[in-house]
Amino acid sequence: MSSPSPVPTPLPPADVLADRKARVETWFQGLRDRICAAFEALEDDLADGPHTGLPPGRFERTAWDRPGQGGGSGGGGVMSVMKGRVFEKVGVNVSTVFGTFSDEFRGSIPGAAESGGFWASGISLVAHMRSPLVPAVHMNTRHLVTSYAWFGGGADLTPMFLDTAETAEDKADFHAALKAACDAHGPDFYARFSDWCDRYFFLPHRNEPRGVGGIFYDGHDTGDWEADFAFTRAVGEAFLEVYPRLVRRRMHLPWTEAQREHQLHRRGRYAEFNLIHDRGTLFGLKTGGNIDAIMMSLPPEVKWS
Amino acid sequence: MSSPSPVPTPLPPADVLADRKARVETWFQGLRDRICAAFEALEDDLADGPHTGLPPGRFERTAWDRPGQGGGSGGGGVMSVMKGRVFEKVGVNVSTVFGTFSDEFRGSIPGAAESGGFWASGISLVAHMRSPLVPAVHMNTRHLVTSYAWFGGGADLTPMFLDTAETAEDKADFHAALKAACDAHGPDFYARFSDWCDRYFFLPHRNEPRGVGGIFYDGHDTGDWEADFAFTRAVGEAFLEVYPRLVRRRMHLPWTEAQREHQLHRRGRYAEFNLIHDRGTLFGLKTGGNIDAIMMSLPPEVKWS
Repeated sequence: MSSPSPVPTPLPPADVLADRKARVETWFQGLRDRICAAFEALEDDLADGPHTGLPPGRFERTAWDRPGQGGGSGGGGVMSVMKGRVFEKVGVNVSTVFGTFSDEFRGSIPGAAESGGFWASGISLVAHMRSPLVPAVHMNTRHLVTSYAWFGGGADLTPMFLDTAETAEDKADFHAALKAACDAHGPDFYARFSDWCDRYFFLPHRNEPRGVGGIFYDGHDTGDWEADFAFTRAVGEAFLEVYPRLVRRRMHLPWTEAQREHQLHRRGRYAEFNLIHDRGTLFGLKTGGNIDAIMMSLPPEVKWS
Repeated sequence: MSSPSPVPTPLPPADVLADRKARVETWFQGLRDRICAAFEALEDDLADGPHTGLPPGRFERTAWDRPGQGGGSGGGGVMSVMKGRVFEKVGVNVSTVFGTFSDEFRGSIPGAAESGGFWASGISLVAHMRSPLVPAVHMNTRHLVTSYAWFGGGADLTPMFLDTAETAEDKADFHAALKAACDAHGPDFYARFSDWCDRYFFLPHRNEPRGVGGIFYDGHDTGDWEADFAFTRAVGEAFLEVYPRLVRRRMHLPWTEAQREHQLHRRGRYAEFNLIHDRGTLFGLKTGGNIDAIMMSLPPEVKWS
């Protein structure tokens, strides 16, 4: 169960496939509900710092439809956005979209070269925090079905200051949680997927990492669909356990204006990465995704020197 | 002299080519000096509004070298940046770079497919203003030499509010100045180049124009190099005449916090365009340009909803 199968696993019978799709989509929605509840609890619990005078934030949900282009294409999603006193802006998007990839795009997607048909469901989350002492975070897991089926996703942490003791502690705890999820499903998962994360979340034009990593995986198909789904659930559970813990232990700390300025400039790098390099953004733009959902990841306020 | 020649004009003898390159580079540097002086005069003349308490801005120049990769590659440039009380951030970059295009890139550049050798000199300017009532602006002119030689460039205006009487007036004056420059060199230039500008400065993912246009031209080689250089000079002169005039008549007006917020969100679109679509940014990143000079165009402060 530890290595990708050398050839893609054939799709199961239609009734089994339909059942799997429904289970995956339902699980992503449930994870979203639990994450939103945990983040709102953090908003309630803020007890110190410059923003305690603000009301605790609450998520607002907006459903969106993907315009069908005929031939069984369509789908949609729900964006959940909170602008609070701990979370300056956090977006959680759950979407299920299906249809046919454009000719331009299908050659780069496994199993899509022939018919171009696809089904994709996933959860995507980006949080930008008010405090420059609390790391920003990204988490995404997804299931794709073409002529093949696979999981992908990961989570990565972006502290504003890379060389502090607090960041070292946050990085260690974040990685430990994801490593535990990996280790329960494959002995080499953590080594492979944390390395993949470091390579993916890198700004070549700046020669800089985006943050302190985490894990990233894609095309995940070990031949045991149930195990692969269980691994993806474990990644979601690990995120839900560790990130609120990291936020809670830093969110009450005071910060300086200089630290805030640094944060705004660090967010410039985040915007550069997402607009120049991120494949998730590209996938959304190429498949006619909802523009607000795609751009939800951009920071609320940014500075460039 | 009004249409591009159907086949690229052969390069002149080496001594003539060297003389042309020197004249072009010198002219771009002189234009830079005159633009900087005009912009500093605007800084001096600010008499009203929330920022009169700040000292008048002055340009700071930073020279940069392009690391040579051997084989006669290298060059460099000078970035001039001012953070003032009228100009929140304006960058003017003059650069001359030469070398060999990467294999990946050369197929998309006229005359570069065989040897891949190139020489490029240009001036590039982006201004982001403190007042949301003063349009942002971009101007760039350049000369490229591969197996062929051509000019390119243009100028376009980005008001923060698209449907006001002031914007209509600014747009009309900006276009009139560029049209006069065009009309003196080719009867169809303005129609072709203003249309090209509208198509180029467009955000397909938003289905929005970046601003109110101007002119854009590229691959400009009519067969009369002297005329083509004169046209490019005329574009620079038109910009130098019209833009300070537009700034001067709006820069003293008071504005509201809501107008400033709108400006910061409009700048988000500007950043999206430059990072996702702009070929100038791409050219810089692909040819190992100076990262600070490439990213100089990004707004100093941006918000996304």
